[in-house]
Amino acid sequence: MPRHQILTFLTDFGTSDPYVAEMKGVILSVLPGANLVDISHDIPAGDVMAAAVVLRQALPYFPPETVHCVVVDPGVGTERRILAARYDRQVVVFPDNGVISFVDRDRALEGIAVVRDERYFLTPAAAPTFHGRDIIAPVAAHLAGGLGLERLGPPPETFKLLDLPVPRPAPDGRLVGQVIYVDRYGNLISNISAALLERTFGRGPRVSVACAGKEVGPLRLTYAHVRQGQVLALVNSMSLVEVAVNGGRADEALSAGVGSEVCAACQVK
Amino acid sequence: MPRHQILTFLTDFGTSDPYVAEMKGVILSVLPGANLVDISHDIPAGDVMAAAVVLRQALPYFPPETVHCVVVDPGVGTERRILAARYDRQVVVFPDNGVISFVDRDRALEGIAVVRDERYFLTPAAAPTFHGRDIIAPVAAHLAGGLGLERLGPPPETFKLLDLPVPRPAPDGRLVGQVIYVDRYGNLISNISAALLERTFGRGPRVSVACAGKEVGPLRLTYAHVRQGQVLALVNSMSLVEVAVNGGRADEALSAGVGSEVCAACQVK
Amino acid sequence: MPRHQILTFLTDFGTSDPYVAEMKGVILSVLPGANLVDISHDIPAGDVMAAAVVLRQALPYFPPETVHCVVVDPGVGTERRILAARYDRQVVVFPDNGVISFVDRDRALEGIAVVRDERYFLTPAAAPTFHGRDIIAPVAAHLAGGLGLERLGPPPETFKLLDLPVPRPAPDGRLVGQVIYVDRYGNLISNISAALLERTFGRGPRVSVACAGKEVGPLRLTYAHVRQGQVLALVNSMSLVEVAVNGGRADEALSAGVGSEVCAACQVK
Repeated sequence: MPRHQILTFLTDFGTSDPYVAEMKGVILSVLPGANLVDISHDIPAGDVMAAAVVLRQALPYFPPETVHCVVVDPGVGTERRILAARYDRQVVVFPDNGVISFVDRDRALEGIAVVRDERYFLTPAAAPTFHGRDIIAPVAAHLAGGLGLERLGPPPETFKLLDLPVPRPAPDGRLVGQVIYVDRYGNLISNISAALLERTFGRGPRVSVACAGKEVGPLRLTYAHVRQGQVLALVNSMSLVEVAVNGGRADEALSAGVGSEVCAACQVK
Repeated sequence: MPRHQILTFLTDFGTSDPYVAEMKGVILSVLPGANLVDISHDIPAGDVMAAAVVLRQALPYFPPETVHCVVVDPGVGTERRILAARYDRQVVVFPDNGVISFVDRDRALEGIAVVRDERYFLTPAAAPTFHGRDIIAPVAAHLAGGLGLERLGPPPETFKLLDLPVPRPAPDGRLVGQVIYVDRYGNLISNISAALLERTFGRGPRVSVACAGKEVGPLRLTYAHVRQGQVLALVNSMSLVEVAVNGGRADEALSAGVGSEVCAACQVK
Repeated sequence: MPRHQILTFLTDFGTSDPYVAEMKGVILSVLPGANLVDISHDIPAGDVMAAAVVLRQALPYFPPETVHCVVVDPGVGTERRILAARYDRQVVVFPDNGVISFVDRDRALEGIAVVRDERYFLTPAAAPTFHGRDIIAPVAAHLAGGLGLERLGPPPETFKLLDLPVPRPAPDGRLVGQVIYVDRYGNLISNISAALLERTFGRGPRVSVACAGKEVGPLRLTYAHVRQGQVLALVNSMSLVEVAVNGGRADEALSAGVGSEVCAACQVK
């Protein structure tokens, strides 16, 4: 059994109701010394795409053997399954709705199981409306306590992945991507990665960015490289191209949001 | 002394101000290895009834010896006392304002004390406006560290209980209850339990629900059993009758809230 | 190495995005058993003054060796440095923007260093836009694990302190201070301390308070000493003069906020 049992929570439950605490109580009943960390409970209700982005971003910073509980689950009570998958020596327990898509795209799958063995569920038998508490939490606790993934059930033949938007080269040489996440500051985070920029335009030339049809200018090193209130683009802390306003909200300034077009081009001058 | 010291927090403090952290700092100064869990800090200010519902729901999922700190306390600074009570081998420290009402109705009281011995208070002497930090937190830490309840003070002769709404049979055979809690999704949670339904209507017949004067239809197994946007009723994860909208807000759809009538009847067909 | 490693977080990140979890993951990768406590993530974006008040209030309640991570940092990416300072046997890691001002005014500085040694930073090299994750979190983890402050870098020749508003005596004998913080209840918290009141007016006479040009009346012991909806003044749990409304919001009732004048005077009767 590992000495340190770290479990995280990523939900759309908010923090006013007892739902998160019920999950934590279930886990502490199995592992009273577990170290519990909230990733977020403020994912917009049922927004699987937003949860997928947040999970992709947070997971790499946690140590091996961390177990992540993801409960953004518009299909609770339907036939969709609960899965447990291992990436980067960490485990994610999640509904089979595509929330794992970005992690799965970026990292090697090291194991996956359909969560089926009811001995690891909360007893009495699971309520059909709260799989987070009745299945995901107790199963995650057993996994954090050392249970092998293969003990939960067989691997699925396949599992759901979202149709992730992919940046594409345009005939004129530009790279055309889109906004995949808007953070609380109104920053517009695109699906254009630093690595893709380099593969497309090489290391040398400066790159210029446009968003929602408006020129944003060259990539800056940081927010403070433009005046207060000015729009800018940079490679952010997720290594993704981000459009922001220094001291303001880019979503409002550009009337943009998830799905808005973000273009990168070599500066011709 | 127990190996694992789990303490929870249920307050109306919000999470922007330093008040919650002050309580946690006080506890960690007594028990630096304590495992601290937030139940909620977003109870509407002074809403003892909402806190009572949330506490009733979260408590059963925590392991024995957990100590719960409840600070929803519109009467801070008045003569109301601080109590510590034991239910289900767990302890709750709370202002004597009725916040314990649902827990006390549903579970056997195993011990109770008026918190009086100032040796367990924060020194210097308690500020009259923050009993959560100055009395409840340090007392809870000592309890989680193994202090016996009886060391805090004598049992009270009586303590405050809310006048909880009780579902009643109507002359026409219907069961008439009411909404006691609205969660962040707008779900209307009633005081009609699954057990009461069974005692009233038996196991066989299907039950139909109305809320705020509108027919909602038969009890469903889960939200996904009706179309998006449709109202439904189900027995929820608290084992209570709940009125919801699949993918929407029932409070808005039915113009209902805490106190609205919820009726259950045998379907006659 | 200390047995208990307590770290706190004070940011303006909110709790919907992955940023806080990234910091926590970085820390747990160094210290998997660390006890992590949120002070607040809801400081208004870039409001260094509000963060300074909250830090001043929370810090004294934590035990020795606690390490506080402060990331309210409108200047991220500019040349401002990251500092680590020791007060009260606790350590604060923070951007050099004045957020330490109240703590530094009230407590003895026991040591300070410019955070410079990149061996304690997150590798690969720090992103220029997220010093909280890439510098403050890993450095804080190493400090909580026992690293000496002096190992991080040299002491700064000087560091930034805010121009804190100071209450001043008026010619007519009144003490004129101002609101420095408004809490979630709308309470107006001034910079007039209980100690200053006593030095100015002595222990005997009753003191009367005005705020934003309106008489508020004598200092009360607690909120419940006036009727519901009535304005009052008291010495609050921070030992500061506070103007409040029993069961209401003083900021709205008095159209007051940070910077509004608060006066204390001997009651002449």
